[in-house]
Amino acid sequence: MTKISDVLTVQNKPKAEAFLDQISGKKPLFILTIATTETAKISGISAAGKFPEFTDYTPPADAELLLLGKCIKGVPVTPDGIPTPALITMSALHVADIPVLVASGGLRVKPQIPFLDLGGSPGRDIRTGNAVDNVEEVIERATVAGEHLAKNADYLVIGESIPGGTTTALGVLSAMGVKADGKVSSSMPDNPHDLKIEAVKSGLIAAGIGFGDLAENPVKAVSCLGDPMMPAFAGLVVGAASQVPILMAGGTQMTAVLAVVKALNPDVLCNVAVGTTRWVANDRSSDLKGIVAQIADVPILAADLDFGASRFEGLRAYEKGIVKEGVGAGGASIAAMAEFEGAVTKDLLLKEIERNYALLMATK
Amino acid sequence: MTKISDVLTVQNKPKAEAFLDQISGKKPLFILTIATTETAKISGISAAGKFPEFTDYTPPADAELLLLGKCIKGVPVTPDGIPTPALITMSALHVADIPVLVASGGLRVKPQIPFLDLGGSPGRDIRTGNAVDNVEEVIERATVAGEHLAKNADYLVIGESIPGGTTTALGVLSAMGVKADGKVSSSMPDNPHDLKIEAVKSGLIAAGIGFGDLAENPVKAVSCLGDPMMPAFAGLVVGAASQVPILMAGGTQMTAVLAVVKALNPDVLCNVAVGTTRWVANDRSSDLKGIVAQIADVPILAADLDFGASRFEGLRAYEKGIVKEGVGAGGASIAAMAEFEGAVTKDLLLKEIERNYALLMATK
Repeated sequence: MTKISDVLTVQNKPKAEAFLDQISGKKPLFILTIATTETAKISGISAAGKFPEFTDYTPPADAELLLLGKCIKGVPVTPDGIPTPALITMSALHVADIPVLVASGGLRVKPQIPFLDLGGSPGRDIRTGNAVDNVEEVIERATVAGEHLAKNADYLVIGESIPGGTTTALGVLSAMGVKADGKVSSSMPDNPHDLKIEAVKSGLIAAGIGFGDLAENPVKAVSCLGDPMMPAFAGLVVGAASQVPILMAGGTQMTAVLAVVKALNPDVLCNVAVGTTRWVANDRSSDLKGIVAQIADVPILAADLDFGASRFEGLRAYEKGIVKEGVGAGGASIAAMAEFEGAVTKDLLLKEIERNYALLMATK
Repeated sequence: MTKISDVLTVQNKPKAEAFLDQISGKKPLFILTIATTETAKISGISAAGKFPEFTDYTPPADAELLLLGKCIKGVPVTPDGIPTPALITMSALHVADIPVLVASGGLRVKPQIPFLDLGGSPGRDIRTGNAVDNVEEVIERATVAGEHLAKNADYLVIGESIPGGTTTALGVLSAMGVKADGKVSSSMPDNPHDLKIEAVKSGLIAAGIGFGDLAENPVKAVSCLGDPMMPAFAGLVVGAASQVPILMAGGTQMTAVLAVVKALNPDVLCNVAVGTTRWVANDRSSDLKGIVAQIADVPILAADLDFGASRFEGLRAYEKGIVKEGVGAGGASIAAMAEFEGAVTKDLLLKEIERNYALLMATK
């Protein structure tokens, strides 16, 4: 059994260790699924971007950062000047020379980099009860992509960037009968649970459905109350997981994808783990473990990242519960640590993150 | 030295054998670069599709066939009912379980499958002298994609589907000072060299350039007289070839891409080979070897495919010089043969091709 001390086994310890053992010394492909939803523009919901309209630019900017090591139109920061978690992801992937593919589930603003078009459209506000078009088609296309992409890589790490994504996650979980009120995470230190619950309630009413009505209908759940990242992400998992292990890289948003995957094809769940950060795993304002436990017996791993000793205030802020996760930061860190069987430590990662932070801030 | 008897070494025998040895037993990623150009609609130029407008649908249909094993809107056939070479490619990739990624250089009709968007637009008629937009940007994006895609695969096989592509190849070769009049191939048994030469002459005049004026300016050569497949393909080669071997899968169209790659970064050519079919290698109405020899000392391999004994007339037609190559058919066949170190023979491939042909014709 490989010991990778800076990866925490958060839930289902034996399976988590077995998964970690399986990916140790292996080279993954990292796929970033990006999309936008008008849900992110509900006042107070999301911290991604300085202004609501900026949420359209955050996913493309995150994708550009991963592929190019720079953003074409400046680095995405929170209102307090704290950098996107893509900085962590980029640093981890760079250290381990892990390749990146960007897949779009539906965007208002296209990234200025190569990206996989899965035939989706940007998402509407979930309060309409009619949030996402083409869900079935995007799932099908993403499944085909996942089948092919799994053939060259040892395993896949799949992350997401979509502002407003925990609200849409709550929407889909509620429609599918998973209790997640007060349990989804937030990129802000004060998690606006009430706003999210309110938005989901409006969406359920508008769609004419009640809690759990769509437990067996993931396509409709996403169509009514989800976001366009979900069909892209879920399809990739369904297509690839019969061939290779999949690390679903994210926080509580992963639970909605997990619920969708389970409803589409429960057989693939045995090859799936959730990989997140310590900040999500230890977050008192959300409950990743509690949501996952309602859905499936999949392991949860967390990168034991700690920015407390960073020389940059913008990074130390992560210890105050700001940002926490996103752009597959936790999963990418786990993958980098696993590839070198522990030789890439959290300290080494922090040094690389600080180096890239300094470079990015200098060119901002 | 691995002996793979059904792969012919057509040019630069020692290098060709070394390349074949390098890819033997290895698993590639096959990338199909697709695009459209109005040049294909010049009367008499192209046989791809029953009517000129059909040329917009051929590349998406080819891509669908590779990814799905079926076409969403029928199988692309020549005016005589002879199947697209994508049938060969699909069969070879299927036998060897080689994954496919489709990359668009610029299309009028989008395929109904996942595809990599490289930011390009459909091409104009080269007689305008202003054939392709965004060439530099597409090259840059494709280079980034190539860098990442090379990290998981043992090597890349890159093919193309673009009707009218030998005419645009002649255009770029002429602008860059490579003598190719009467040397580019055709999918028709009677190669319409005069029509191609005439179109290129008009394009050169419209662009205000003479033969060889753009030898050092590949971006302008493609912009004036090329097609949108070229910047996508060339960028992928430039990005990937510093890391892994590249089999450029195609006939005389590959020479234009080779000239562009050489002008962008000659250092990568040492990791490149051209892989085609026996039908192109032995074609008396074109001269692949003669064009390549003017550009670079890269090896040429050919799959020794022979459909003479096929039970289907539509396949036997290939022996009369119809179609000959396309959609990376030759390169995909070579890759399948190499992966199993000769155990996949041309006879086995023909059986698989016949099986798929029968299936496709039954559902047509």
